[in-house]
Amino acid sequence: MNKKRRFAVIMAGGRGTRFWPASTKARPKQFMDLLGGGTMLQKTASRFANITGAEGVLVVTGANYKTIAANQLPLLPEKNLLLEPVGRNTAACIGWAAETLRRRGFAESVMIVAASDHKIEPVDGFEKTIANATMLAESGYLCTIGITPDNPATGYGYLQIGEEIKPGNRVKSFKEKPDSVTAEKYLTSGEYLWNSGMFIWRVDSFLSELEKHMPDLYKAIVQLPDTTAPSLEDYGTLESESIDYGVMEKTDKAVVVPAHFKWSDIGDWPGARGAGVNMGESLVIDSENSLVFDETGRLTVIVGLNNVSVVSTDKVTLVMSDSSAQKIKELVNALDAKGSDLI
Amino acid sequence: MNKKRRFAVIMAGGRGTRFWPASTKARPKQFMDLLGGGTMLQKTASRFANITGAEGVLVVTGANYKTIAANQLPLLPEKNLLLEPVGRNTAACIGWAAETLRRRGFAESVMIVAASDHKIEPVDGFEKTIANATMLAESGYLCTIGITPDNPATGYGYLQIGEEIKPGNRVKSFKEKPDSVTAEKYLTSGEYLWNSGMFIWRVDSFLSELEKHMPDLYKAIVQLPDTTAPSLEDYGTLESESIDYGVMEKTDKAVVVPAHFKWSDIGDWPGARGAGVNMGESLVIDSENSLVFDETGRLTVIVGLNNVSVVSTDKVTLVMSDSSAQKIKELVNALDAKGSDLI
Repeated sequence: MNKKRRFAVIMAGGRGTRFWPASTKARPKQFMDLLGGGTMLQKTASRFANITGAEGVLVVTGANYKTIAANQLPLLPEKNLLLEPVGRNTAACIGWAAETLRRRGFAESVMIVAASDHKIEPVDGFEKTIANATMLAESGYLCTIGITPDNPATGYGYLQIGEEIKPGNRVKSFKEKPDSVTAEKYLTSGEYLWNSGMFIWRVDSFLSELEKHMPDLYKAIVQLPDTTAPSLEDYGTLESESIDYGVMEKTDKAVVVPAHFKWSDIGDWPGARGAGVNMGESLVIDSENSLVFDETGRLTVIVGLNNVSVVSTDKVTLVMSDSSAQKIKELVNALDAKGSDLI
Repeated sequence: MNKKRRFAVIMAGGRGTRFWPASTKARPKQFMDLLGGGTMLQKTASRFANITGAEGVLVVTGANYKTIAANQLPLLPEKNLLLEPVGRNTAACIGWAAETLRRRGFAESVMIVAASDHKIEPVDGFEKTIANATMLAESGYLCTIGITPDNPATGYGYLQIGEEIKPGNRVKSFKEKPDSVTAEKYLTSGEYLWNSGMFIWRVDSFLSELEKHMPDLYKAIVQLPDTTAPSLEDYGTLESESIDYGVMEKTDKAVVVPAHFKWSDIGDWPGARGAGVNMGESLVIDSENSLVFDETGRLTVIVGLNNVSVVSTDKVTLVMSDSSAQKIKELVNALDAKGSDLI
């Protein structure tokens, strides 16, 4: 067995609430074909399979999505589908995946952690970036990928660049999503990169940092039974924390390599528009920055409205201004609380 | 035969283009149930039947709407359905209806002319107003109904009030739709009323003013064959002019009575909202002045958008800002030119 082989861990557990009504409980956005040519999950898995082989791809998702994930990735080995009985945030998810790889004998391998909802191109730039990150990972660093900002986005975390460690740099600090004044400062300073939320590290280096900075979670993870489908009793008690807050902001091993690719975080409808999502027949008049997503086969006509998304599904028409994109989560939660069958 | 009986002439010939996509060629808005409790045409006819009896109601519409009009008004005598082979504007339509009444022996009767797309209430105030107008009509005046403006609307014509002639006033002048500065002046002066577009006059007084101010049209109308369905050859050559421009602005017999009712001209989607139109299930969040009209049984959700109409039909979703309401006509014409089956 080649202990030096690489693995990809794709986090595909979210509900994609902000993509309602297209994204629903039964079919979250990672299982949707938003960009054409395959679902978000399929495209992400395919991108990584080029690097790791199908055997090297692990997908972590909700136990309720077992069938849809397996159907969408027919070549994924069954043991590589890790099923969370409940979401416990990224630290638990990534820790469990790392522990799973260690148990399978790959403690010294490099693992690449990524979300399932990023648009990335071109592929060769992506692979070059991963190769650079792998070099640093093999030296024991916890490596992230930084995107050169082209606008003062407030929807991303930022990485402050520190001392050079070829082919990247140390991360001097992690910054949460800034306000727009701060984002503007970050942009003009040239000292900051967007945090892509991808991580590249050796399984063992990561687990030892996890043990150091989140000892309780680490202990609970190593005691999990050896299964790809832990019980709610076992998994549900894991500490729920983000990997950024729990480990990355605390470790002194964080480094960053610059991305040699274009990246979009397809996190909400306006983000989807930025990534080129537009589906269905539409007629857009006197309107700028609009997005149409239609699954009904009807014509969508937008007249005299800027920065708006119009999403039509069999059950719902959503018309939303960009500035309200964050409200969707609230709205879906309210519908959920009422027992609505529309979510 | 009681020569003093009254008649109502309901103009129901329009395409209702500005209500696309709900209003289509096959079913223009006057045949739609926009407000609940009956279509616009049915409600208008019912309002007049209270005054004139069903025998006294005449409907002028397009020949292609013969069946839908007859179906919606099963009690309308067949001879009271006047079918235009093509629309030739209001002067020809009203002139033909008046000539038809004269041929039937009602030259001395009062006729009330109205569009089929006005929302009017309460009924008793309407009837009182018509009674006042009838008094002036019986004295030979061409009477209009003026609505006291409550805002500087630019979408209506205005009537300047002149010398009192109880129970109304002479019309000093007719003003076309004003710009907003002018509308504001009209409003604050207290000298102006909105032109409701309703007319009340004796058949003979009107025809003699038509002869005086539009002699060519008059001559052509009296030569029309005696039928409720003239040929395109006969009717299509009539001069196409509005009654306001052709007769009302020129006659010295124009008077106005004030309306004792609330009136909305349901001329476009924002106007429909003003009249209380809202149909279908909706969820409206952080949004003011929105209208939802859904015929698909789906839920319409509007988030963070003001002054917007969302109209869903089996074939189309229209999302439009109020300020673009006038664009619809243009859009429908463009689709028509392309041979679209959506209009």
